[in-house]
Amino acid sequence: MARYTRMDHIRFLLEEVHNLPDLFALNKFQHLTWEQAWMIVESAKQLADRDMFPYFREMDEHAVHYDGSGNVITHAQLKTIIKHGAEQGWIGGGASMEHGGLQLPMMVFNAGHHIFTAANNGAIGYMGLTAGAAALINSFGTREQHDLFVPNMYSGKWQGTMALTEPQAGSSLSDITTIASPIGEGFYKIKGQKIFISGGHHQACENFIHLTLARIEGAPAGTKGISLFIIPKYWPGDHGLISENDVFCAGDFKKLGQRAYATTHLVFGEQDNCKGWLIGEPNKGLAYMFQMMNEARISVGMGAVSIAMAAYLASLDYAQERTQGRLPSEKNPLNPPALIIQHADVQRMLLTQKAIVEGGLALTMECNRQFDLAHAAAGDAKQEAWLLLEILTPIVKAWCSEQANRSAALAIQTFGGYGYTMDFPVQQYYRDLKIFTLYEGTTGIQSLDLLGRKVSMEKGMALQLLLTRIKETIDEANTHESLKAYSNQLNIEVQNIRKVLEHLNRNAGNDADRYLSDATVFMDLMGCLVVAWQWLKQATSAQVSLSDRNFSRQSQSFYEGIIHTMKFYFRYELPHAEAYAKTLMNPDYLVQVKNKQLF
Amino acid sequence: MARYTRMDHIRFLLEEVHNLPDLFALNKFQHLTWEQAWMIVESAKQLADRDMFPYFREMDEHAVHYDGSGNVITHAQLKTIIKHGAEQGWIGGGASMEHGGLQLPMMVFNAGHHIFTAANNGAIGYMGLTAGAAALINSFGTREQHDLFVPNMYSGKWQGTMALTEPQAGSSLSDITTIASPIGEGFYKIKGQKIFISGGHHQACENFIHLTLARIEGAPAGTKGISLFIIPKYWPGDHGLISENDVFCAGDFKKLGQRAYATTHLVFGEQDNCKGWLIGEPNKGLAYMFQMMNEARISVGMGAVSIAMAAYLASLDYAQERTQGRLPSEKNPLNPPALIIQHADVQRMLLTQKAIVEGGLALTMECNRQFDLAHAAAGDAKQEAWLLLEILTPIVKAWCSEQANRSAALAIQTFGGYGYTMDFPVQQYYRDLKIFTLYEGTTGIQSLDLLGRKVSMEKGMALQLLLTRIKETIDEANTHESLKAYSNQLNIEVQNIRKVLEHLNRNAGNDADRYLSDATVFMDLMGCLVVAWQWLKQATSAQVSLSDRNFSRQSQSFYEGIIHTMKFYFRYELPHAEAYAKTLMNPDYLVQVKNKQLF
Repeated sequence: MARYTRMDHIRFLLEEVHNLPDLFALNKFQHLTWEQAWMIVESAKQLADRDMFPYFREMDEHAVHYDGSGNVITHAQLKTIIKHGAEQGWIGGGASMEHGGLQLPMMVFNAGHHIFTAANNGAIGYMGLTAGAAALINSFGTREQHDLFVPNMYSGKWQGTMALTEPQAGSSLSDITTIASPIGEGFYKIKGQKIFISGGHHQACENFIHLTLARIEGAPAGTKGISLFIIPKYWPGDHGLISENDVFCAGDFKKLGQRAYATTHLVFGEQDNCKGWLIGEPNKGLAYMFQMMNEARISVGMGAVSIAMAAYLASLDYAQERTQGRLPSEKNPLNPPALIIQHADVQRMLLTQKAIVEGGLALTMECNRQFDLAHAAAGDAKQEAWLLLEILTPIVKAWCSEQANRSAALAIQTFGGYGYTMDFPVQQYYRDLKIFTLYEGTTGIQSLDLLGRKVSMEKGMALQLLLTRIKETIDEANTHESLKAYSNQLNIEVQNIRKVLEHLNRNAGNDADRYLSDATVFMDLMGCLVVAWQWLKQATSAQVSLSDRNFSRQSQSFYEGIIHTMKFYFRYELPHAEAYAKTLMNPDYLVQVKNKQLF
Repeated sequence: MARYTRMDHIRFLLEEVHNLPDLFALNKFQHLTWEQAWMIVESAKQLADRDMFPYFREMDEHAVHYDGSGNVITHAQLKTIIKHGAEQGWIGGGASMEHGGLQLPMMVFNAGHHIFTAANNGAIGYMGLTAGAAALINSFGTREQHDLFVPNMYSGKWQGTMALTEPQAGSSLSDITTIASPIGEGFYKIKGQKIFISGGHHQACENFIHLTLARIEGAPAGTKGISLFIIPKYWPGDHGLISENDVFCAGDFKKLGQRAYATTHLVFGEQDNCKGWLIGEPNKGLAYMFQMMNEARISVGMGAVSIAMAAYLASLDYAQERTQGRLPSEKNPLNPPALIIQHADVQRMLLTQKAIVEGGLALTMECNRQFDLAHAAAGDAKQEAWLLLEILTPIVKAWCSEQANRSAALAIQTFGGYGYTMDFPVQQYYRDLKIFTLYEGTTGIQSLDLLGRKVSMEKGMALQLLLTRIKETIDEANTHESLKAYSNQLNIEVQNIRKVLEHLNRNAGNDADRYLSDATVFMDLMGCLVVAWQWLKQATSAQVSLSDRNFSRQSQSFYEGIIHTMKFYFRYELPHAEAYAKTLMNPDYLVQVKNKQLF
């Protein structure tokens, strides 16, 4: 079977770089040991090998489709995937035991989800979505709400969804118009439409629990008037009886990729008989939803590098089998052709991919670790983890999704003309990936969040903390003679962040539009530097094992490969940080064009 | 009807920036006037509006497919497109009158082909291919060969193809094994297989003229033993009779995009009865083919920016209709939402696309002009044009195709989630474009050509000449106060080229592999600078009209838009030239990994 992820790299990140074992000292995770945690991750790989990866291409070719009367037809294997995934705990595993979960660290839970996404991204979306929806009920719903819905979600019988987007509002949630009229005891009559709803009424589940944003009649305008509702397709009744709710799946969207993953259009209350149940307090829906959204953003960033990882490994394997051409120094046409991996440009394409996917996965695991500390640690450690998580989340989402697309394009390029044909999987990875720069807030929206909110939050403490952590990695790398040149390079580049922010503040004055006008370029700068940090961190861990000649966990070549890729990133990618800084400090203000004839 | 190209920009390039009118003083083109030439370009637009653009999406949805017995089934409209296109001269128009053409400058012929590609890239490929194949016969074949094949090719009845690639050899033409055994009088018996042959046996034409590379029995190994043959599907006989040749279309490739464009697998001589006719001398086939290849490379670069142009305009129109969200400075959610074009990040995405497509088209037209001068001028002017064409060709091919892909991704991003659905055309542009970085030599191969051959050719004269031309533009821009800052910026960045080349030479010594190991990064550097040159050139032309307040050809807003986009390119794109230079001058040598475990 073809490779789609690297267990050695996952283990290296968990065990050596991001120190999963020390989480087991925390109360929340003391029921686990490293050996158990790793066994859980390995079980995910076995499940993915058996149930998911073999169906990846088939589920794309036999795409989901709408049956014309309310249901989306899915591939038969999807039901098996969800059933077995749920049995192993890959829906509820991250939840507390109190809520019926396994109380796994997010580092472990998401290591599994990384494997699943690399194996079959169209299938795993359903499970991730249910996990997120259930987590919202757990966090902000009542015990009664939990008991009524969550157990069947964790068993995989029922599908959870997030119903946010409306046709006229798109990303602008303040403009949603789905309306909720109180009918007493926390219940509301719902009327409205939602589009782009992943995991809508499909064949593989029996019920659909739509976590839906709507506006209670008379609520304040904008984001302050949005509430969160549970709207099931079927209402559970006494003795397990079930009555149909007035939620209709009116169609599905045909998409460039992720064709195994249903994207639906939902209509609530067409018969004026749709009943929703308020979660938590009125008008706090958006704040609640943002818990789910933040986790979803990390998942989307991770999902993107997971798919790009599979594309990278497919192209790497191909490059080691396919012969073509000769090196420039080889002048004799009678000598046999080279493996394409011997060509410098193919190595450049492969190492660029490796730098992106392993760098992105390292950054994702950094976030997962901060997530775990924010939820399980105490005092300063908890607060610091929360701040780091806040500032890293938009970066993980935006950088990983943008760069994963670039990476998969290089996978196609490595295959040559064959990569463009439907005979090889890389075109599917490329199609599947394009949505990740749009899911859960576009790159532009993540960038506004980073520069407009996260950089200045808590008087700039999140940014300060991030810079401190980067400096710690630099200092540690500096203790290794072989890494000094690189730690110095990063140290110099990181200075740009402060310089740029001072310039932006001075330049924009009180003009918020101007201050934020290059938020996406600032994101490019931060992403480039933060991933350099993760590469230096990985290289330092690798150097420690190399210096100790400790190859009990990974091979010498593995560690050398990590250091090599760090050098590659620093040579080919990091120089662009300065270019982004230069753009940001250029005084021309060019993206406030009023005369549309100028375009 | 939606827009897919901008006639005003095409006219601006032809009339003001690249001075088409002065070509009409040359003997070869003195049968034309500017008014006639522009009328010809406008007729292309009318043809594309009527016959091509309306079928663009339909021809993708109803893709070509193999019938199982030697033929590719095409959309019914294709036959009409080829017929009408041929009648208007869009197959043979670039050929000399002696060869039955209209003797159009390539600037005019390719302005038409730009329009067609933007309108329907799957359809126009067939015609471009026939034009290229016929040009090869004209240049290197006999009059007899011309008379037997070319008239029916120019009328659109017969399809020309380029049959180069073989399954085992891919881009490495020195390894082709199709064999030719002499049977006398310039005829040979042919045996072999070719893959990825565009325009193979389809329904819209009656005969197929395969310009095929093969090795004559006993020929020297490598590229020095390759000959070029005409291998028709049907041999024209006496009195127009036609006998079937032993060439079989064994299937077609299913592709990510360009689904209207047949990509076939051809088998020659399965019945041991395939007859080919040698063109020119034995063993010179590759040199002949390179004439076609060089023109094809310009066409591929141009084709890519043409498709990206259509994607840009689709996203621009959408951005002017779709409302969503509010500017950061707008705090009142009761105020109506903004058009998305008002958002800074959407403007950044649109201007990035405009900078790529209009910059790329300007560069393409520069090449077309040099092509025309190389073929129609005399003395030094001819020689200089030829050198410039040689060095610019790989840059046009590589830069335009890579950046066009990036551009189309931004078009999808501008559409938001809708861009990912099959309901809008941007996903098709995105799919269609991915092949352009592979067609006619990958980006890596173009880069080896640039750094390994073109930079050093004629003792570096081609590069010197290019730098001189860039300097002339800088000096001219410098005469306009408002452009000085930009001409100075380019002047500084251009110095990097020499510095980088000196470093590469010093660093590599006699190691050819090392010298060429970062050829693609050198291509990135050159592309970035050469397009900056084209933007400065466009801005200077625009500034002249603005200073003269001469708005008889284009509107004031048009010229202001050109200058604005030049500034945008210089602020957002040009700073990366320095990053590429930095990478190239970094002494780490990382793409010669021998231990494959390091990946």
